[in-house]
Amino acid sequence: MSTQYEKAIQFFHQNKAKYTDTLKDYLRIPSISADSAYKKDLHRAAEWLVDYLKSLGIEKAQIYETQLHPIVYGEFLKAGKEKPTVLIYGHYDVQPPDPVELWQSDPFGPVEKDGLLYARGTSDMKGQLMASFAAIDSIMHTNEFPVNLKFIIEGEEEIGSPSIVNFLENHKDLFRSDFALNLDAGMIAEDIPTIVFGLRGLAYFEIHVKGPEHDLHSGLFGGVVYNPAQALCEILAGMKDKDGKILLPSFYDDVEPLTQGERSELAHLPMNDQYYLDQTGVPDLWGEIGYTAAERVGGRPSLEINGINSGYTGEGPKTVIPSVAMAKISSRLVPHQTPENIHQQLLQYMKIHAPKNISWEVKPLTSDFPCVIGRDFYATQCFSNALEKVFGKKPVYKREGGSIPIVNYMKNILGIESVLSGFGLPDDRIHSPNERINLDLWDKGVQSVIHFFYNLSELSQ
Amino acid sequence: MSTQYEKAIQFFHQNKAKYTDTLKDYLRIPSISADSAYKKDLHRAAEWLVDYLKSLGIEKAQIYETQLHPIVYGEFLKAGKEKPTVLIYGHYDVQPPDPVELWQSDPFGPVEKDGLLYARGTSDMKGQLMASFAAIDSIMHTNEFPVNLKFIIEGEEEIGSPSIVNFLENHKDLFRSDFALNLDAGMIAEDIPTIVFGLRGLAYFEIHVKGPEHDLHSGLFGGVVYNPAQALCEILAGMKDKDGKILLPSFYDDVEPLTQGERSELAHLPMNDQYYLDQTGVPDLWGEIGYTAAERVGGRPSLEINGINSGYTGEGPKTVIPSVAMAKISSRLVPHQTPENIHQQLLQYMKIHAPKNISWEVKPLTSDFPCVIGRDFYATQCFSNALEKVFGKKPVYKREGGSIPIVNYMKNILGIESVLSGFGLPDDRIHSPNERINLDLWDKGVQSVIHFFYNLSELSQ
Repeated sequence: MSTQYEKAIQFFHQNKAKYTDTLKDYLRIPSISADSAYKKDLHRAAEWLVDYLKSLGIEKAQIYETQLHPIVYGEFLKAGKEKPTVLIYGHYDVQPPDPVELWQSDPFGPVEKDGLLYARGTSDMKGQLMASFAAIDSIMHTNEFPVNLKFIIEGEEEIGSPSIVNFLENHKDLFRSDFALNLDAGMIAEDIPTIVFGLRGLAYFEIHVKGPEHDLHSGLFGGVVYNPAQALCEILAGMKDKDGKILLPSFYDDVEPLTQGERSELAHLPMNDQYYLDQTGVPDLWGEIGYTAAERVGGRPSLEINGINSGYTGEGPKTVIPSVAMAKISSRLVPHQTPENIHQQLLQYMKIHAPKNISWEVKPLTSDFPCVIGRDFYATQCFSNALEKVFGKKPVYKREGGSIPIVNYMKNILGIESVLSGFGLPDDRIHSPNERINLDLWDKGVQSVIHFFYNLSELSQ
Repeated sequence: MSTQYEKAIQFFHQNKAKYTDTLKDYLRIPSISADSAYKKDLHRAAEWLVDYLKSLGIEKAQIYETQLHPIVYGEFLKAGKEKPTVLIYGHYDVQPPDPVELWQSDPFGPVEKDGLLYARGTSDMKGQLMASFAAIDSIMHTNEFPVNLKFIIEGEEEIGSPSIVNFLENHKDLFRSDFALNLDAGMIAEDIPTIVFGLRGLAYFEIHVKGPEHDLHSGLFGGVVYNPAQALCEILAGMKDKDGKILLPSFYDDVEPLTQGERSELAHLPMNDQYYLDQTGVPDLWGEIGYTAAERVGGRPSLEINGINSGYTGEGPKTVIPSVAMAKISSRLVPHQTPENIHQQLLQYMKIHAPKNISWEVKPLTSDFPCVIGRDFYATQCFSNALEKVFGKKPVYKREGGSIPIVNYMKNILGIESVLSGFGLPDDRIHSPNERINLDLWDKGVQSVIHFFYNLSELSQ
C-alpha cells in the first residue's frame, strides 16, 4: 500500500505550483455572502467549483439553486459498495474584508510572502477545501481512487447557513454517506495537529435603540433627552460585571459545568495564557473569573459586542444628539444552552434594564446549537493516524470556541458524524484584515488527506 | 423716515423671487467644512460670496486665504464717519448631510414645499445671511445706504473656526467697527422674535480605545480579552448617574448657579416641557434632576455622546471581536467652566475608570468658552425695536444652549459686542436630515434687518 500514497504525494509535490495557482484563481472571486452586492460573485464561485470538480474526475457535479446562494454537489462512487463514502463539506463564501484600509494587499488579490499566502478566504476556508482537491487530484492521477466521495459546498456558512437545513431535509438520499469530512476547524499551532471534538453554539442579535424622532442639535437640546447612544452604552455595559460574569438573567442556569477530567485535559493543551497573550497582543487577558483562558474558550459561554454604531463618526466634530443607536452582539453557547433561551434572556434583560425614555428592538440574526462529538469514531481515528504519519506526532483533541452549524445538521438531518480538523492557525486572521495561510502547513494538509483516504480504504479491505 | 424703509420693503417684496432663487444657487454648493473631500466647494462658496457682495454694491469684497478654508471680507463705508459701522458676521460652511438616506430630497438640491425651503444650510446659516443681503440690496436700490458695513464670512464655523482667531489677531484694523451683527442665533417659535444674550461653551473630544492588536474571531477568542467596544460602553455609561448628573470629577465645581431671577425669567419663556416634547418627539424628557428642561438648556452644562463606532456595523452578522472603538463626546459649558478644565476632568476620569486591559487616548477637537452679553447695548435695542415693528411684539431675551465661538473672539480680539438674533426655528432640523427654513419668517427677517439699519441711522443723526 505504501507505494500508492507515496506516488500520490510525489505527484502532488511535482505539481504543487499548479495547485497553488488554482487556489489563487479561486481566491480572486469575492464571494462575500453577508453583502448582497456580491450575489453574482457567489454564483461565479459555485460555477468555478463545478468546473473544477469535473476536471478532477468527479463526473456528477452540479449546482443546486437555493433561495439565496447556490449549493455545489458532487459525486464519485467508482470505488465500489464495500468502500466507505466520504461526504466532503466545504463553504465557498467568505467574510467581508472590512476594515479594508487595514489590508496590506488586495483582499481578493492573493499575494505570497515568506511562505504565507495572503487573501480573504485563504484559511477560512478556500485553502482548506483546495487541500482536499489537490489530494484527490494527485491520487486520481496515480491510482484507482480508494474510497467513494460526495461533496456539499455551500455559500452561506458565514451568514449562518439559512438555506442548508431545508436543502438537506429535501435531499437526504442524495447525501447518503458514511460520515462527513470538515476541514473548517483549525490547528492549535504549527507543530500541533488537532482534531476538534466539541463546538460552541451561537446566538447572534442586533439591538436597535431609538430616542428623539430625528438627530438633534446638541447645543439646543443637550441635557434634555435620553441620548440613545448613552442608553445603548448603559445597556451593553450592564451585561457583564467587573469580573467578566455575564448578567443576562439565568444565563448560566443551563450551562453544563466542566468536569475535573475536562479541566485537566484543557490544562494539558499547549494553549496557556501566554499563548493567548501572543495571539491577541493584549497586555493582560480578561474574562470570567475562576477559569483559565483555554477553559473559557473551550467550555464556557461568552457574550461579545461585535459592532456598535450611532451618530456621527466621520472626520471632525459634529454637534449632534443621535436619533438611533445599534449594536451587534453574540453569545457563544456550551451544552446545554439553546439560542432560543438566550434570546428570551436578552428580551428579559432589556425589559428590566432599558431606560423607559427610549424605544428598543432585539433582532435575532443567526443561531446554532453547541455540540460534542465522540472521539473514538473510526473515521476520526483514520484522520488521527494520517496526521500522526505526516506530522510525526499524535494530534491533540480539543473543544473549539467557535461554531460550525453544519455539524449539527449532518448529525440531526443526515444521521452522520463529522471528522473535524484543518490546517489553519489561530493567527491566520480569519474574519480580520490580512487573512493568510501557511503554505508549508497546507502542503502537510494535502499529504494528510491523501493518507486519510488510504487509511479508510485499508480499514474496509 | 418712514418712506425710506417702506420703499425698501416694497422693493424687496417685488423682487422676492429673485432673492430666493439666488439663495437656492448658494445652497447648491456643498460647502461641508468637516470633510476634506469638499475643499474645492468651500472655495467655490467663498468666490460666489465675493461676486455677490460686489453685485450688491459692496465695492471692496475679496477672499483672504487661511491654512484651511478662505475668509470672505467686504467693506462699504460711504455712509460717512458719523454713522456706525456694522460688522456683519456669517459662515458659508455647513454640517455634513449624514445620515444622507434620511433626506427626502437632495441635501444640496433646494426644494420648496408648503412655505418651507429644504436643503442643508437653509437655516444654519446660508438663509440667514441671505436675509441680510436681500435687505441690503433692497435699500441700495431705493435709497442712500444709511450705515457703514463690513463683512466677515468664514468657512470653518461648523468645525470650531480653527483659522479665525489668528486671522482676527492679524487684521484688527481691517475689522474696526462698532459692533457685530450675527444672525446665527434662532427664534424660540414662529411668533416669538428672539434675542440671545447668553451662550453655552463647548468642549468636544474623541475617545479612542484599543484592545487586541487586530480584530479577533469571536468564537476562537470570545471570553478571553477585554472587548474595546465593551470597555468604551462602560466608560461612557459611567459618565452619568441614573438621574442625569454628570460624573466627571469636579464637573460642577465651577458652575455658576442659576439665580432665582434667572430661573423665574426662564420659567416665563414659552418653552415648557411640552415644547421640548414636541420638538424632539420623545415620550419623556430626561436630564439633570431638579431643573426644568429650559433651565438645563439655558443655564446648566451638558455632556452628550455625538457618535460611537466599533467593529462590524454593515449588513448581516460578522463574528468579530473589534480591535478598536471610538466615541465622540462633547460638553456644553456655562459660566465659569472652561474647556481646558473639562479636558483635565475627562483625563482624570479615564485614569480612574478606563479598564487596565485596554489602552486609550483622548483627543480634544474643538472648544469654546461660555459667555453672557449685556442686554441694554444700544445696537441690541435697535434690533429689538426692528423686531417689534415687524412682528408686532417685543422680542424675548434668552440664554442659548448652543455655542457661537465667534462672539467671544469679537469681544476679546476686536473689542466689540455682538447683536445675536436670527429667523431660524428649533424644528428647522439644523445639523439633521431635512434641514429647512420657514420662508414667511425669512421674509420677516429681511424686513427686520431693513428696519434695523434705519433704526441705527436715526440714533446717530
